[in-house]
Amino acid sequence: MIETPYLLFLGDAPDMLAAKVAIGIRDWRPENAVGQISLPGCGANLGLTEMSLAEGREAGARTLVIGVANRGGIISAKWKEVLIEALEMGYDLASGLHNLLRNEPDLVAAAAQNGRALHDVRIPSVQYPIANGEKRTGKRCLAVGTDCSVGKMYTAMAMERDMTARGMKATFRATGQTGILITGGGVPLDAVIADFMAGSIEYLTPDNDPDHWDMIEGQGSLFHVSYSGVTLALIHGGQPDALILCHEPTRSHMRGLPGYTLPSLEALRDMALPLAQVANPACRVAGISINTQHMSEEEARGYLAEVSQRMGLPATDPYRFGADVLVDALAGL
Amino acid sequence: MIETPYLLFLGDAPDMLAAKVAIGIRDWRPENAVGQISLPGCGANLGLTEMSLAEGREAGARTLVIGVANRGGIISAKWKEVLIEALEMGYDLASGLHNLLRNEPDLVAAAAQNGRALHDVRIPSVQYPIANGEKRTGKRCLAVGTDCSVGKMYTAMAMERDMTARGMKATFRATGQTGILITGGGVPLDAVIADFMAGSIEYLTPDNDPDHWDMIEGQGSLFHVSYSGVTLALIHGGQPDALILCHEPTRSHMRGLPGYTLPSLEALRDMALPLAQVANPACRVAGISINTQHMSEEEARGYLAEVSQRMGLPATDPYRFGADVLVDALAGL
Repeated sequence: MIETPYLLFLGDAPDMLAAKVAIGIRDWRPENAVGQISLPGCGANLGLTEMSLAEGREAGARTLVIGVANRGGIISAKWKEVLIEALEMGYDLASGLHNLLRNEPDLVAAAAQNGRALHDVRIPSVQYPIANGEKRTGKRCLAVGTDCSVGKMYTAMAMERDMTARGMKATFRATGQTGILITGGGVPLDAVIADFMAGSIEYLTPDNDPDHWDMIEGQGSLFHVSYSGVTLALIHGGQPDALILCHEPTRSHMRGLPGYTLPSLEALRDMALPLAQVANPACRVAGISINTQHMSEEEARGYLAEVSQRMGLPATDPYRFGADVLVDALAGL
Repeated sequence: MIETPYLLFLGDAPDMLAAKVAIGIRDWRPENAVGQISLPGCGANLGLTEMSLAEGREAGARTLVIGVANRGGIISAKWKEVLIEALEMGYDLASGLHNLLRNEPDLVAAAAQNGRALHDVRIPSVQYPIANGEKRTGKRCLAVGTDCSVGKMYTAMAMERDMTARGMKATFRATGQTGILITGGGVPLDAVIADFMAGSIEYLTPDNDPDHWDMIEGQGSLFHVSYSGVTLALIHGGQPDALILCHEPTRSHMRGLPGYTLPSLEALRDMALPLAQVANPACRVAGISINTQHMSEEEARGYLAEVSQRMGLPATDPYRFGADVLVDALAGL
């Protein structure tokens, strides 16, 4: 686990798009961020209090999180000045960058001298077991998508937030870099060795209270040929009690695969549910989450009503209209 | 690729069961083995010519293959005497052992001094791409199973042998340690990083002649929750034109999963074919391969006739009765 709260390092990010991780932390775990720190020329601004490293420490920050994508794939000398000073002041560092903190000798040396940790969340830090398929106590919900990047993480996050607000027991379980940095822990599933994928998800979602829900972050899609194996490992390792079907209706082809059209929500249901029932015969499709960001509000509401009626399931855009109908569905299971 | 032919090192294997890899090489690629070499007390005997290292070199051997599982998970001092002498005599070494040759400093030093290669086939030696899903030329056949270890490798091997004997163009494509050592190359899929699984299979089965068949070694099962993600990556990376359904009818539960019963062949067909058609809409189920090792000949023939009639597909035990009916089915596609 990464120690919270964080100070969010925005570096010299050219724009807000480069600050996706920091935005996710601000939106979903505001209590995890005491403030932000930028370098001159930074084009991103989260609207949090701008702090020096010393001010961040005074505000209680334990970890400096690199909340931005870096330019050119290297950790620049300008960044390193700040990162090394942070280690000397007692911060741990956490990063989801492809170029790893642990591969930078000066950062490794400064961390060792100061007894601090370097968290590279792209790399598993645990020797995961092979999945044993044994039924676990507690309940689990998994978002599955017609494609990659259709809103599976936001769906699980939004549902967890509404469930917690209602007094239900729920824990978001991160399976990707962004989710891990937002919450401080999880499994970087795309970097796990093939034989241990399902086992890593069993490890992530252990026995729990009978009325506790693990809200597992989905990855990939059964219909995305590049990553479908990762998705099936999630389905079988997570042994979900409930599936949420996720879809982005305006997309013209599968992400990164111009020759592949998206499946229908019905096709997703008919593929995912029998596979999920291999691990958990009681699994149900509980609802539908639609990413309506490219639709007007009128279009979005019309589409949701049509889909809900057609499939006999609650449907919402949880980011735009709230997750209530999906949480109602879980509460009834 | 591992240089052939081989001299097969049997070490001090306690019995034939420990010599699975060597047996596979003898049975499926006899032209790859010039002979065998044993230590005193060896309980395995392949019936090949017993040779010294020098005799093996004179017979043309390029690589000493460790064809046995070792005792206690370590490469013993007795083994190392032979392995180091082999490196000094110009052999490469190849091994599928969990304890890696490359982690033994004395072997690494001897290999470096003599300019020889150490092949640890459990570990990928290639940086595989992410799958792009593009349609490739040539044809591909994949064996999928109701469970792990039901005969998928032997099915693909037997079909390749019969196809080659008929003058058809066919190449067995290994995806596991044993298959890689038998044929000299392949992808150790269970050790590949999740994001690159499907891409590794695209890499393994590239564009080919329109009438060439890649006979891809299957792994795991869509119904085996520990490894199903690996299986789906094979299905989507391999984009097969033909599936062969594999089954072992006497098994009481899924291998290693006491709580899980085996699916029917019909359930396997209905799960695997729609998934395969995501990557290749023209994919067909071409036939059925039954592992009848625990049935009498009469039982086996009766079972095959019943299954073939019930499912409307050719069915055989290719190891016991030959692969002809399966090859006929591919020849008609």
